[in-house]
Amino acid sequence: MISRGHQKIVSKIVTVNLANDSYDIHIGYGLLQNLDHYLSDLLHQRVTIITESNVAELHLTRLTEPLDQVGIKWEVIILEPGEKSKSLTVVHEVVEKLLSLQIERKDLLIAFGGGVIGDLAGFVASIVLRGIEYVQIPTTLLAQVDSAIGGKTGINSKQGKNLIGSFKQPKLVLNDLELITTLPARQYWAGYGEVLKYGLICDRDFFDWLETNSNQIKEMEIEAIMKMVQKSCQIKSTIVEEDEKELGNQRTLLNLGHTFGHAFETLTDYTNCLLHGEAVTIGCNLAFQLSAESKFCPKEDVERLTDHMRSFQLVHSPNQIKYNHPTAQMLMKAMKKDKKVMNGVLRFVLVRGIGEAFVAENVNLGLVEKILQSNLPHQ
Amino acid sequence: MISRGHQKIVSKIVTVNLANDSYDIHIGYGLLQNLDHYLSDLLHQRVTIITESNVAELHLTRLTEPLDQVGIKWEVIILEPGEKSKSLTVVHEVVEKLLSLQIERKDLLIAFGGGVIGDLAGFVASIVLRGIEYVQIPTTLLAQVDSAIGGKTGINSKQGKNLIGSFKQPKLVLNDLELITTLPARQYWAGYGEVLKYGLICDRDFFDWLETNSNQIKEMEIEAIMKMVQKSCQIKSTIVEEDEKELGNQRTLLNLGHTFGHAFETLTDYTNCLLHGEAVTIGCNLAFQLSAESKFCPKEDVERLTDHMRSFQLVHSPNQIKYNHPTAQMLMKAMKKDKKVMNGVLRFVLVRGIGEAFVAENVNLGLVEKILQSNLPHQ
Repeated sequence: MISRGHQKIVSKIVTVNLANDSYDIHIGYGLLQNLDHYLSDLLHQRVTIITESNVAELHLTRLTEPLDQVGIKWEVIILEPGEKSKSLTVVHEVVEKLLSLQIERKDLLIAFGGGVIGDLAGFVASIVLRGIEYVQIPTTLLAQVDSAIGGKTGINSKQGKNLIGSFKQPKLVLNDLELITTLPARQYWAGYGEVLKYGLICDRDFFDWLETNSNQIKEMEIEAIMKMVQKSCQIKSTIVEEDEKELGNQRTLLNLGHTFGHAFETLTDYTNCLLHGEAVTIGCNLAFQLSAESKFCPKEDVERLTDHMRSFQLVHSPNQIKYNHPTAQMLMKAMKKDKKVMNGVLRFVLVRGIGEAFVAENVNLGLVEKILQSNLPHQ
Repeated sequence: MISRGHQKIVSKIVTVNLANDSYDIHIGYGLLQNLDHYLSDLLHQRVTIITESNVAELHLTRLTEPLDQVGIKWEVIILEPGEKSKSLTVVHEVVEKLLSLQIERKDLLIAFGGGVIGDLAGFVASIVLRGIEYVQIPTTLLAQVDSAIGGKTGINSKQGKNLIGSFKQPKLVLNDLELITTLPARQYWAGYGEVLKYGLICDRDFFDWLETNSNQIKEMEIEAIMKMVQKSCQIKSTIVEEDEKELGNQRTLLNLGHTFGHAFETLTDYTNCLLHGEAVTIGCNLAFQLSAESKFCPKEDVERLTDHMRSFQLVHSPNQIKYNHPTAQMLMKAMKKDKKVMNGVLRFVLVRGIGEAFVAENVNLGLVEKILQSNLPHQ
């Protein structure tokens, strides 16, 4: 509990334990009102904020006012919103801009936005002057529970999503729930797909809890949202601690739904007609179907999952994508460019049931195509 | 000693001890004849070689023939020679090319060239698929004793040299002396500037040895060259082990001569009219003069150094640069963009004598300008 003037803010801390690269995730409602408190150890001289125009318009003063109050100089770089900004061309512009501002190694970078901004700013922090410190202040549910944690940074290539990037842990993650409870509904519920994913990967109890508390979550009761975000951050942190650089299979489990999901995103050209969280939700649905079809997972778990997705009105089927629908063959081709390809074989995260994901090395590609075909609209 | 068929190759190993990122530097004449032996643990599937056109023409088959013999598939990306290739634009092209070749995480990258290729390929290896393994096979003296060791990768910005990059250790460095003893003389002697630097930083005995053995070195006797390269690699490794990420001052010492040197390189536009090693040699000369002028270093050591530089006919004075000469003011401005700027103060590597470099935090900029003026041609 942080107390400052009249403000009492209840906050929770999840620590990501990574030896020299350990850091805290703070979770609470209204955290940014005490921004200088959280940043105090990191404010050596100047701060540069990387954000996008929508976030800047709504929230930028939440950062700049506290910085002004403590007399810390700041600069801001405002990008176009959307996945298109996650390109090497934009990275190039941002890096040159930072260097022209004569950024120094002791300056702090703040990633202030959703997944796109976090991934891009983290990558920039890893390559400018061979690395400077950065902080994640995620403004979407998806970024708070997933992309802002764990140090994976990424940029899209012509060949696919996140094929360029680095591992660069932030010094701190600030999850202010005030930012996410004012999100447009579509953004918010896309992020819920990643929350759900954690239960599906390794925590059946968490999935049970999400079912039991679905009304509170739908109504955005702060206590429920706090617990939901905290639990998601805990699961993500534990997995990252076990396998920071994705050398084993642990971290790969976080990609449940992503092999399918990335293929849909590639073929909808990373546009607004399919948000990343929506793609992951669709992907989790298909991964469960594939697991059942491969006799790994009971059909009841697939039904329980799709019931839950429907009850939350999540985008969970390729039929709901507003776009010229790709064919199964086009999706198969896109999947083969995934980073999880090893020795030419496509690895897939499958499940033995809710809460029991595993990495399958030799997935029957015929079955994958069959699942895609049965889920795509008839053409 | 590696024996294969009729070939007996004497080689030395210098190990860079960095916990999980440790690796060996092999030094010997004709090492590439046993390339598959040295690479054996790293050849999982495919190899991609990044090189430049001059090196490719002279030496590419030294890599591809042994790979063909053991049935390892290879690809090659051939860049334009010269510092201009060390740009984010070229990185972008190379990364997209690698991804279009469907590179996988188990593929090996080989940096085959001088400092430019090593810096660029190392950076590419650090960002493609969030990092793949790479090996340095340096083809210049400068790269063998300096840039291929220690994991600093770098790309030039409009704002200055190496302002973009990462730390990414190679899995192995192969220093084949056969490659460097066939270098054009100018390339070779530019690299000697970095050799000399090691003696100047921390090893007066090594400097003595270089003086004593100057005839053998000038005549490129293999035994002397072997010892010279080995000793240089040892000094560099020790410094890198103590301060891998340049968080302390140890690694900064390696920049002796570089603050001056980079300024000259920036203002000669990274062209062939001034090689990096030449810039460093000039920079070391000026750093010694500045140290003497600041009363840190005895004048005799400055004279001993310039005598040595003259006896080797090294490019060691700004007068020898074939270019429109920059003014002292222009050089001062370029120096202020150096990465060693901290809290707005320019740090300089100075010396208390040959073998005793240190980082000076508060250098009198008036003296720096005076030294520059007294060394520049009258305009």
